[in-house]
Amino acid sequence: MGKRIIVVGGSAAGPKAAAKARRLDENAEITIIQKDAELSMASCGYPYYVGGVFDDRNMLLCTPTGVVRNPTFYMNAKKIEALVCTEVTAIDRQKKSVQCRNLESGTTSEVPYDKLILATGSIPNMPRIPGASLEGITTLQSMSDADYLRKIKDEKKITKAVVIGGGLIGVETCEALQLAGIDITVVELLPQLLTFLDWELAKLIENHIKSKNVNVITENGIVAFLGDGKKLSGIKLANGAEIPCELAVVAIGVRPNSLIAKEAGLKIGERGGVCVNEYLQTSDTDIYAVGDCIEVKNLITGKMIHAPFGDLANLQGRAAGENAISGNKAQFSGTIQTGICKIFDYAAGTTGLTEKAALQAGFDILTVVNTSLDKPGFMQGKLLITKLVVEKGSGKILGAQCIGAGDVGRQVAQWAMAIMAGFSVHDVINADLPYAPPFSLALDHFIATAHIMQNKMLGRLKGISAREVKERIDKGEKITFLDIRDHSEYEAMRLGIGEKLIPLGALRKKLGELPQEKDAPIVTFCKISLRGYEAALVLEANGWRNVRVMEGGIMAWPFGREK
Amino acid sequence: MGKRIIVVGGSAAGPKAAAKARRLDENAEITIIQKDAELSMASCGYPYYVGGVFDDRNMLLCTPTGVVRNPTFYMNAKKIEALVCTEVTAIDRQKKSVQCRNLESGTTSEVPYDKLILATGSIPNMPRIPGASLEGITTLQSMSDADYLRKIKDEKKITKAVVIGGGLIGVETCEALQLAGIDITVVELLPQLLTFLDWELAKLIENHIKSKNVNVITENGIVAFLGDGKKLSGIKLANGAEIPCELAVVAIGVRPNSLIAKEAGLKIGERGGVCVNEYLQTSDTDIYAVGDCIEVKNLITGKMIHAPFGDLANLQGRAAGENAISGNKAQFSGTIQTGICKIFDYAAGTTGLTEKAALQAGFDILTVVNTSLDKPGFMQGKLLITKLVVEKGSGKILGAQCIGAGDVGRQVAQWAMAIMAGFSVHDVINADLPYAPPFSLALDHFIATAHIMQNKMLGRLKGISAREVKERIDKGEKITFLDIRDHSEYEAMRLGIGEKLIPLGALRKKLGELPQEKDAPIVTFCKISLRGYEAALVLEANGWRNVRVMEGGIMAWPFGREK
Repeated sequence: MGKRIIVVGGSAAGPKAAAKARRLDENAEITIIQKDAELSMASCGYPYYVGGVFDDRNMLLCTPTGVVRNPTFYMNAKKIEALVCTEVTAIDRQKKSVQCRNLESGTTSEVPYDKLILATGSIPNMPRIPGASLEGITTLQSMSDADYLRKIKDEKKITKAVVIGGGLIGVETCEALQLAGIDITVVELLPQLLTFLDWELAKLIENHIKSKNVNVITENGIVAFLGDGKKLSGIKLANGAEIPCELAVVAIGVRPNSLIAKEAGLKIGERGGVCVNEYLQTSDTDIYAVGDCIEVKNLITGKMIHAPFGDLANLQGRAAGENAISGNKAQFSGTIQTGICKIFDYAAGTTGLTEKAALQAGFDILTVVNTSLDKPGFMQGKLLITKLVVEKGSGKILGAQCIGAGDVGRQVAQWAMAIMAGFSVHDVINADLPYAPPFSLALDHFIATAHIMQNKMLGRLKGISAREVKERIDKGEKITFLDIRDHSEYEAMRLGIGEKLIPLGALRKKLGELPQEKDAPIVTFCKISLRGYEAALVLEANGWRNVRVMEGGIMAWPFGREK
Repeated sequence: MGKRIIVVGGSAAGPKAAAKARRLDENAEITIIQKDAELSMASCGYPYYVGGVFDDRNMLLCTPTGVVRNPTFYMNAKKIEALVCTEVTAIDRQKKSVQCRNLESGTTSEVPYDKLILATGSIPNMPRIPGASLEGITTLQSMSDADYLRKIKDEKKITKAVVIGGGLIGVETCEALQLAGIDITVVELLPQLLTFLDWELAKLIENHIKSKNVNVITENGIVAFLGDGKKLSGIKLANGAEIPCELAVVAIGVRPNSLIAKEAGLKIGERGGVCVNEYLQTSDTDIYAVGDCIEVKNLITGKMIHAPFGDLANLQGRAAGENAISGNKAQFSGTIQTGICKIFDYAAGTTGLTEKAALQAGFDILTVVNTSLDKPGFMQGKLLITKLVVEKGSGKILGAQCIGAGDVGRQVAQWAMAIMAGFSVHDVINADLPYAPPFSLALDHFIATAHIMQNKMLGRLKGISAREVKERIDKGEKITFLDIRDHSEYEAMRLGIGEKLIPLGALRKKLGELPQEKDAPIVTFCKISLRGYEAALVLEANGWRNVRVMEGGIMAWPFGREK
């Protein structure tokens, strides 16, 4: 008789583990036990199905050649038994068996295992407030949620919706519903959307979302769902405001679904996830756990975290599937928390630590913001804004965030590889990347960002963040702001912070127009602050001692502009 | 008086060096001496201007905000004197001066330097054959070449053209002229286009080019340009064939323009380029050289090569500009020869060594081909084909090539970073890359490629290349070919190499239809050979000992198909 492998959970990590186990052992008896009716759902694709990017629901469930991954497929193609609509209610570690209940028939059964792989996923958080059981409140976590929201899109009856929570799922859902023609308000308790970004980049994303006629409310929580009979009619916020809506999508994060593991006495971590070692093995050597139900190590801080990402789930499933068959051979050591999402015409991605996270972790850091195109203007290049975080002194790359209409995916991928390599900024100064005009600038945005950071580390660039500029303006400090662009650019767009316009080409002749006190604070900038940097160097060479360049330029200014 | 910096050459590396020198020293006297009328041309953009991707010639010459980088711009914005239409005819290393000749007035002058930076670029190779002075023969190397070809596009008088040389510039030019509505034939002396790819990937690109109604001739050289009076009327090939054409674009590579360096007694390398150390310093400590006129080290083989790429030119210019001002501080240690180009709907990229180059360099290697989508099917994912080359045993990544309609740029960038990091395949098995459906598969193509290579290294995947399959067919070997796809897929497309169709879902029940001699050679495959791999594992588990998977599947088959 073959080795008996039970996999609990049939979404991403579970099927991957089962498939890998099968490839390594044709004779193993492999069973997937899945609570939902569907298997191997592309759950990250739900928002795109809801938004109408594609219409065929089966595309979320099928192989690249169009075969739906149902129990028949698993049996015929992979000789894996898949029990759907079946819940595992308990694990008996002594007997090495799981208790199952068929959700349709109600019958229970006991299935024995040699190795058990838990892939029980996560549970969406719900606010514990009045009205939570009204009709019209949902999450976007399951296939049935996706069906529910897609029906709303197709029926076109609902005109107003709120999205509670401005994280990754929240903004993706916001876009999906807006594409469906629904008036959207996003409500976020924190001072910003997308906490995998620092505040100023998140604010630029918020501005972009608002430009699509989406209402965004931050620093304000929901205190009640309001009802009209059984149906949702609005929400009430902490500040007393009421927002009418017929639909509320709750996206305030997820937590590990680790209850059966806990009840079986497996070790659970501080974040509520199943504890596993680098082989994905739980505190019981015969039980592995993978995907959203576990905690993983942040490889930069060394801290255990909950990282519910589809790519990590697949990697973990592959390793656990191997280990369940072959003994502990395959490792999964942790994550650098790389992520990305699309938000209307922009993308936002991150890898490693934000400034905020790096400071919280106790790093002594330097940051820089770079704004530039992804490709040449003549190839319709689009803007990218990157914030790079490095360790002071060594220049070791700790994290990078990138947003914009340009090719964010490649940028974040490059930074992720650099972090995995343990690179400092100095190691990527001469990075040999694929260049041709349809693909990048001659010096890719990634390389230019490293150059700017190097200039800062060497004391050549004395930068100031847009946020600090704003704070100093708000404090009433007297600063000379120097906009280094051309007159036509100034007429088309400008900050309106009392800046003086001196185009770079005229600067050397107009030094007399600057404050002649050489310690007077001056901040230079332009559209992206490349000319701003050159201007600062000219001023310093001419004796000014207190000149700083506003990093990222006007395009990275997250506050309101005069024009 | 400030330090006198002379930069010879005003295309890419030269202006970058001059600008960097200026940023480091406001008081230096910096002069660019440029033979052409234009400065800082985006020469990699010429094919896109010729092809009509954009129409404003100034876009090749201007800053991101639309200011043409002419001598006035350089003087006003950067305080750099730019002498255009001026040729440097000699270097006097004793006197530390250069001899100049104004190409318009004919006047000569002598300009002294403290540090000299040579950025004299490259010279296109021309075939030494009869008829080379006929009208209608050009290269695509200069702004005036671009103007000439763009005029041809706009006038629409020419109907037939040949491109001599199927390298990077050749295929880009081919696309540009085809977009202009001209009948194109590409003639290449070697057995393949794009020698930065191995033969089978280049052949797939050739198939794609041919699908655009471009005629491609390989393994055939041009022996004469044929004339009708003064004008080109055709070309004659080594095999005697004549191809009528009114235009011939020669793109058979470039060589370093190092004559003045050689005449000045500077050390010249075996490839004809100026020799420089890691600080870009020539054999004369007061003279630096950068860009297409130098030789650089291939960081994998350690060999000196000519690598005329725009991105490297910029990186070298930046380092030399710094070193000319500050003494030798900034290094440029070499290249891993990363490159990419667009070819109609495909891109083709490379980094590190091809299989051919790795074998020539004496490496003991393993290769693998992976075919998969760049994104999920429901996000309109497109195909990528990657060939990975690693060192046998260690799995150290030596090179990767990627082609296809998908996001090749990101793939090649990731491999380039991995090579720079000195990574083995094992180091990228769990790469934490940015995943969301609009950007990649849950397991990015890059990671899947590493997984396949790991499977091969562990002996789980026994692969065979399409090329070897074809060779064995041609030798008349008796092999059972097993196509593992579904019937409908087989009806729509098939190789026609005598294959037997057994869909994966039916395989375990139809083992009796296979040769019962367990040593009989069997080759399995499917569209991309993922199912082909699973089938091979099933056969091996059932006792067959001579089963191999055709890597990359049908989509990577470079030969003709039955259907």
